[in-house]
Amino acid sequence: MFAARCLFRALRSCSSAPSPRLKPSAKLSVRDALGAQSTNGERVKVQGWIRSVRSQKEVLFLHVNDGSSLQNLQVVADSSFDSRELAFGSSVEVQGQLVKSPSKRQNVELKAEKIEVVGNCDAKDNGFVHIHTPIITSNDCEGAGELFQVEPSSKIKLPEENFFNVPAFLTVSGQLHLEVMSGAFTQVFTFGPTFRAENSQSRRHLAEFYMVEAEISFVESLQDLMQVMERLFKSATTVVLSNCPEDVELCHKFIAPGQKDRLEHMLKKNFLIISYTEAMEILKQASQNFTFTPEWGGDLHTEHEKYLVKHCGNIPVFVINYPLALKPFYMRDNEDGPQHTVAAVDLLVPGVGELFGGSLREERYHFLEQRLARLGLTEAYQWYLDLRRFGSVPHGGFGMGFERYLQCILGIDNIKDVIPFPRFTHSCLL
Amino acid sequence: MFAARCLFRALRSCSSAPSPRLKPSAKLSVRDALGAQSTNGERVKVQGWIRSVRSQKEVLFLHVNDGSSLQNLQVVADSSFDSRELAFGSSVEVQGQLVKSPSKRQNVELKAEKIEVVGNCDAKDNGFVHIHTPIITSNDCEGAGELFQVEPSSKIKLPEENFFNVPAFLTVSGQLHLEVMSGAFTQVFTFGPTFRAENSQSRRHLAEFYMVEAEISFVESLQDLMQVMERLFKSATTVVLSNCPEDVELCHKFIAPGQKDRLEHMLKKNFLIISYTEAMEILKQASQNFTFTPEWGGDLHTEHEKYLVKHCGNIPVFVINYPLALKPFYMRDNEDGPQHTVAAVDLLVPGVGELFGGSLREERYHFLEQRLARLGLTEAYQWYLDLRRFGSVPHGGFGMGFERYLQCILGIDNIKDVIPFPRFTHSCLL
Repeated sequence: MFAARCLFRALRSCSSAPSPRLKPSAKLSVRDALGAQSTNGERVKVQGWIRSVRSQKEVLFLHVNDGSSLQNLQVVADSSFDSRELAFGSSVEVQGQLVKSPSKRQNVELKAEKIEVVGNCDAKDNGFVHIHTPIITSNDCEGAGELFQVEPSSKIKLPEENFFNVPAFLTVSGQLHLEVMSGAFTQVFTFGPTFRAENSQSRRHLAEFYMVEAEISFVESLQDLMQVMERLFKSATTVVLSNCPEDVELCHKFIAPGQKDRLEHMLKKNFLIISYTEAMEILKQASQNFTFTPEWGGDLHTEHEKYLVKHCGNIPVFVINYPLALKPFYMRDNEDGPQHTVAAVDLLVPGVGELFGGSLREERYHFLEQRLARLGLTEAYQWYLDLRRFGSVPHGGFGMGFERYLQCILGIDNIKDVIPFPRFTHSCLL
Repeated sequence: MFAARCLFRALRSCSSAPSPRLKPSAKLSVRDALGAQSTNGERVKVQGWIRSVRSQKEVLFLHVNDGSSLQNLQVVADSSFDSRELAFGSSVEVQGQLVKSPSKRQNVELKAEKIEVVGNCDAKDNGFVHIHTPIITSNDCEGAGELFQVEPSSKIKLPEENFFNVPAFLTVSGQLHLEVMSGAFTQVFTFGPTFRAENSQSRRHLAEFYMVEAEISFVESLQDLMQVMERLFKSATTVVLSNCPEDVELCHKFIAPGQKDRLEHMLKKNFLIISYTEAMEILKQASQNFTFTPEWGGDLHTEHEKYLVKHCGNIPVFVINYPLALKPFYMRDNEDGPQHTVAAVDLLVPGVGELFGGSLREERYHFLEQRLARLGLTEAYQWYLDLRRFGSVPHGGFGMGFERYLQCILGIDNIKDVIPFPRFTHSCLL
């Protein structure tokens, strides 16, 4: 039905021009089209994905690529072909004449006679509402531990001990604020800076970094969360590859040879899922000697994460159901045993290790109340507990480190190279 | 040419259906169309702006409004009408049949036979590159004064005095970092949180607030800057009015009656321009008694700003060329006298007062060197001075307070009501 409509539209668009008697079109790859020696107007067919769109008053330019070449094929069409469906990332079949290009940028271009959209690429927001969660917060004990405290500099004198009356910190995560907002908007996300006062000089830690965080009401299983995470990774990557092909190719060519293939491998495959318990079994059976001996109840260290990803064939892998004792108070109790776990999930990716962290949240009042009481946090988190008293729903969410994401897709080894002004211990330039 | 192409396309789109012999169409306002009693398929013409677009496989829905009614007119069209030009904010003339709507949401809808785009609304980024400027910075003396200092909370012990080796602060502006990036990308902007440790309980100050900041290379006059500022205000407002008409109408109806008219007045008129010196003359001649007596060389206080906006007929007004002694070291010296000024500009708007602040930057090495030396800042800003040594260009930029912008267009009196988690002295909830 859909293809029929496209065909109908394309034919209709053509009908205003005198219709030449068409010869059957030869199918060419983008590489072959670009390398064509004779351009005597032979009729060809090219299939690929739209890498850029430039819509002018009289004419429409598309750059199309099918992966056979680093260079795109320029398609030139009458502006009557223009439609909302011809967007970044849409797959198309273009028929037309291969002609010599008047521009010096390319030898040939494809003069379109027919453009059929094979698959739409609709960059919708999926109904998520963007929330700006605050940077300064009085939550001081979310379990992340390493906090920056904020006070007016010595120039300012206030009669009170604290500017905000209470100790104030730089946020380590917008999660708790997103949980507040998900109770009004169902699906919310934030994209902003977060902070850790970690004394680390590693290649994957910054004192100031960006996170994409999402929180979704009425989610009842980790499977639902993992689906959103995998789609986010894949669709964001498709958009980056479509919008900034030259920048990505620069990195892949000069900094990380082979990364293009590794990334395509990740995008093609379904991500894997293993439990924390299975992960520990795999690590115990490994022939490799680890600095930290793998043991049920212990953290997954970077060396473990890297081994697991390699073990999984360099496909991103979700690790689920972590020991309750390892994770913060807000994660949902799986009520299993004797090895007591919570519904947590981390996504490990090649080259980087942990990229996403998420969980179902403990939405049951009495479970959460007991966990907070055991940790002596009841008073500080009364407001959070109250969210479970008034219209509580099963919900969950996750965060993705944005600089690590860039490392992963670009193949850049050091996190300090993917941010213009990196901040880490001993360094805060400009 | 453009209208001819639209007409041509519309006619071509129609040509696939049997073409009824058309009666001349009666022109109706949206209000009259919505109130039509008989809907026996009479042929009408409606002109207005597109408020929303819903593109389905077989059918295209547009909501069109011309300001005559709070409710939009639903236009239903065959999907062959769909084009990139039918976007939020575009102005259109629609001809078709007024029919009874099958939906309960409205009585009538307009079945389109012809849609002509009168004016495009192309929400392009105008070539500005989005930069994430850092939150934590070691710049401690930009002239804004009231800074928050950042240190690891007491839990963390490092052998050094400072985590970053140097005192670190929360940013008061991304400007200096944008100036670095504008030297590579020509036109850049940032949108992010900024901080002031001001001991203020006013209705237009927050300790944590958002700013849109832009920096443009090869700008040589305040006129060029003001043009960008006015366009940003007007185009952003058009987008907000198009994308969120219901939310805006809610505020205008229940919180700020009359605001709709005040806003339309601002959007229709060209913003005014007066010099600081002229502003002082106007204030001195005012019959009003001010708390702060206006005097050349003194600050413009809120009461002065409000008077000036009222004096200008409640049209936004740019105030330019402020005393050199009032403004930070980076603003460009006008080399005038005896009243020495710099090329600074503030935009004052109804209800809020100062909304934008900007300037040409001092791009001349020796001028900047002397200013820094006089302030004892040469060492701290050597890196900034160096920007004038290597490929310096005339440039300038501005910042707009985002919460104040929302106050201005929505008519909301207190800045704490336009942000979900407001932070100010004595308050940092959640």
